Amino acid sequence: MKTIIEKYGHKRVTVVEGGITRHRSIFNGLKVFAENEFSSHLLQKPEVVIIHDAVRPFVEEDIVSKVVMAAKEHGAAGAIRPLVSTVIASAADGCLDHSLERARYRASEMPQAFLFDIIYEAYQQCTDYDLDYGTECLHLALKYCKTNAKLVEGTADLWKVTYKRDLYAAESIIKDNLSQQVCVITNVKETLAQVGFLLPESLKSQIKVEAISISLSKNDSCLQNIFSGQCYNFVCVNDKRWAIQETQELVDMLEKLNIPLLCPVVLILVHLDIPENNSFSIGMEDLTTIKKFARETKKKNILVYGLLIQCKDPLLLQETVNSAAALIMALIKDRNPELIGQLLVA
Amino acid sequence: MKTIIEKYGHKRVTVVEGGITRHRSIFNGLKVFAENEFSSHLLQKPEVVIIHDAVRPFVEEDIVSKVVMAAKEHGAAGAIRPLVSTVIASAADGCLDHSLERARYRASEMPQAFLFDIIYEAYQQCTDYDLDYGTECLHLALKYCKTNAKLVEGTADLWKVTYKRDLYAAESIIKDNLSQQVCVITNVKETLAQVGFLLPESLKSQIKVEAISISLSKNDSCLQNIFSGQCYNFVCVNDKRWAIQETQELVDMLEKLNIPLLCPVVLILVHLDIPENNSFSIGMEDLTTIKKFARETKKKNILVYGLLIQCKDPLLLQETVNSAAALIMALIKDRNPELIGQLLVA
Repeated sequence: MKTIIEKYGHKRVTVVEGGITRHRSIFNGLKVFAENEFSSHLLQKPEVVIIHDAVRPFVEEDIVSKVVMAAKEHGAAGAIRPLVSTVIASAADGCLDHSLERARYRASEMPQAFLFDIIYEAYQQCTDYDLDYGTECLHLALKYCKTNAKLVEGTADLWKVTYKRDLYAAESIIKDNLSQQVCVITNVKETLAQVGFLLPESLKSQIKVEAISISLSKNDSCLQNIFSGQCYNFVCVNDKRWAIQETQELVDMLEKLNIPLLCPVVLILVHLDIPENNSFSIGMEDLTTIKKFARETKKKNILVYGLLIQCKDPLLLQETVNSAAALIMALIKDRNPELIGQLLVA
Repeated sequence: MKTIIEKYGHKRVTVVEGGITRHRSIFNGLKVFAENEFSSHLLQKPEVVIIHDAVRPFVEEDIVSKVVMAAKEHGAAGAIRPLVSTVIASAADGCLDHSLERARYRASEMPQAFLFDIIYEAYQQCTDYDLDYGTECLHLALKYCKTNAKLVEGTADLWKVTYKRDLYAAESIIKDNLSQQVCVITNVKETLAQVGFLLPESLKSQIKVEAISISLSKNDSCLQNIFSGQCYNFVCVNDKRWAIQETQELVDMLEKLNIPLLCPVVLILVHLDIPENNSFSIGMEDLTTIKKFARETKKKNILVYGLLIQCKDPLLLQETVNSAAALIMALIKDRNPELIGQLLVA
């Protein structure tokens, strides 16, 4: 935990030792604000505390602010969701006793918020049985402080990452979130003008595109604007075969701005090749150069792929650019670390 | 629906028109066995009927058989799961009324099974309110036939595909299921002997491998055994550059056996290249050949990728084969249709 806080430079986090049950861990967290022996320095008592589960990583700011406002007014508040399945009670013999009318009940989710004094008092009055077998904070506030929590409708993204399938879903959601925007950087050279125009146009139907057509080194402030917009995908179109030096400048800039710290960045090197005759080929040096570069940048959490747009017939350029755009989208969406350094051909 | 039944050759399926609510649809399904006007030919009345949701596609045979056996004994039975969240009742003002003790309740899932006479009688006695607003079949059996259903613990894979994240999870689970086994077919030639041995060995740490080292055309019965084992991944190691004709035979065989009907098959063409000198290169014809072939086979739901194992230094062969195995695993796991016809290099 402390490693994570250090790595990502969090400044206002205090870590408190957990207990053997959920309620005991929360109680430990509350004590930091009220009891001297639980922290090296007593933290200032807050008006409202928010309780959340780490297994609900996709919580939105909106619902947090809603439960906090409701807690200020009602003393306690929690997010709820409709039930997905009917809830039933079983008898001792393992048979159905009765089923609940689904519309009358809700699933209690997180986050929840409380006036500090209310939830702290509730935990102080708790029995050991509550602390060992209970799970619901709203229940404690009701039982010990007569506080009927306000229930706030939450969104579907409050779901709990519980099973293996939830890890799959979480991975896909994160990849989806990272695939919302791409920055296409095109070298100013005249030979690239057409591709520099066609490629962003073709991508636009699938993703938000920022197209920049100036030389990279002169473009620091423009790029920095894009970086601060949390763009995790870059396409560099160049006429020099695999302009590693220029790309290195971009990699350095991304690294300086801490962009690849949290999530992997995809960087696709696009090269347009119009063979003079039919004897087009890819040499071993090209392959080795990209692979070596990709292996190095992967250590910085930047995934580099090569893409060759080869076009014998200018009339087919649009079609080739479209298939290049499809490959770019596939690379961005998959972010597959095994395929780095490969050279795809459109 | 009828298109699906036809496409996949189902023989014993009768489609019944759905109703405007869940209960009305199920009732329509039951009527086929009891009322003449609901089917062109009255179907024979079964002892037990199973009710299931299409949104729970990963149901295992085991739980189906368990609920059927329990229904035979108890008249009704249904799968249950532990509650993931606490269930609460809200008061009219949107505040917490009370919360249920989580351990005493269960989520009612599907499949459920019933003696036909019991569930049919329950539906016949149903009120319009039940049919329009109810959702729980076990509840109807209890209310109208005094049958307390036996509750059977289900597994986590009974979950309901409800939200977008569930589609992501379902896709990953299917891909995972398809990536359990690979068949490596190596041409008998001596030049390939080493790779034909090393590659399956390297893959074995990650996936179940069937290695065959005879020429494809002489190997029908052996391959058919593998096909009947539901293998969806094939690696063909050849010394002829992209032995399209031999591969076409494999494609034809897969097609004849209906393997790619339900799920896409991955077919990776591996070529070992030991350049005489350093002037190794990939020519345009190679790229065009694989791409064209891949586009054709994609229509048959077979995804073809090319993989070149290039090895200047025999001492580095093991390392190169390992990186080829990593690429093969990535292609198998992703089954990305956009990357077909690409030539990867290990």
